[in-house]
Amino acid sequence: MKALLIVAHGSRREASNQEVRALTESVAARCASDWQAVRCAFLELAPPSIPEALESLVREGASEIVVVPWFLAAGRHVREDIPAEVAKVAADHPEVRIHITPHLGRAQGLAEAVLGLVAASSTLR
Amino acid sequence: MKALLIVAHGSRREASNQEVRALTESVAARCASDWQAVRCAFLELAPPSIPEALESLVREGASEIVVVPWFLAAGRHVREDIPAEVAKVAADHPEVRIHITPHLGRAQGLAEAVLGLVAASSTLR
Repeated sequence: MKALLIVAHGSRREASNQEVRALTESVAARCASDWQAVRCAFLELAPPSIPEALESLVREGASEIVVVPWFLAAGRHVREDIPAEVAKVAADHPEVRIHITPHLGRAQGLAEAVLGLVAASSTLR
Repeated sequence: MKALLIVAHGSRREASNQEVRALTESVAARCASDWQAVRCAFLELAPPSIPEALESLVREGASEIVVVPWFLAAGRHVREDIPAEVAKVAADHPEVRIHITPHLGRAQGLAEAVLGLVAASSTLR
């Protein structure tokens, strides 16, 4: 079973965590044939933690897990904290392939996303 | 003259600020016919500040400025700090239309951006 895990910072403001969960559902709806599980986890301030989510996916039978950092900048969280959290679980499950992609800020299509916001917002004025 | 101003948090890590500047150039390259100036500003930790960037655009003759918050979550920065910084300048220039779009996390196309990262990363393994 192949799984995606979208990792966000986590917020005290539950509405922000819900935005991440909604994005996760949106990703899942677009890739169900390729990725049998699409989940999210939070570095801090909201459940589940990265180890909790990874362990859960392993228990469900994941043989490959791809972790996507939902961050715009490659700060300490992206460069150090997320890899460290992932490494802890990976060491316990050498049979599972766990891989971390570049952070969201490196994705293609973000310039278009900005222009989409501008266009949508202009039609509302 | 119509201008876009992309507002990011700003980082002590200059490489993260450079990622924002690169994104700004990428947006500018895609919309030069509609938006004659595309700039970025930072809420803190890096220049220019939001008021500095807005005042500069006004001096250059901007009649309309659209501000795009480069944030994934609608935390305090998006809901309070950016509007407050923008309002300070807007009050001094009632002849300029200044508008703030929803934050990047609300944009269309982010689920596709995530799947693009996953696909690009898979081909490298």
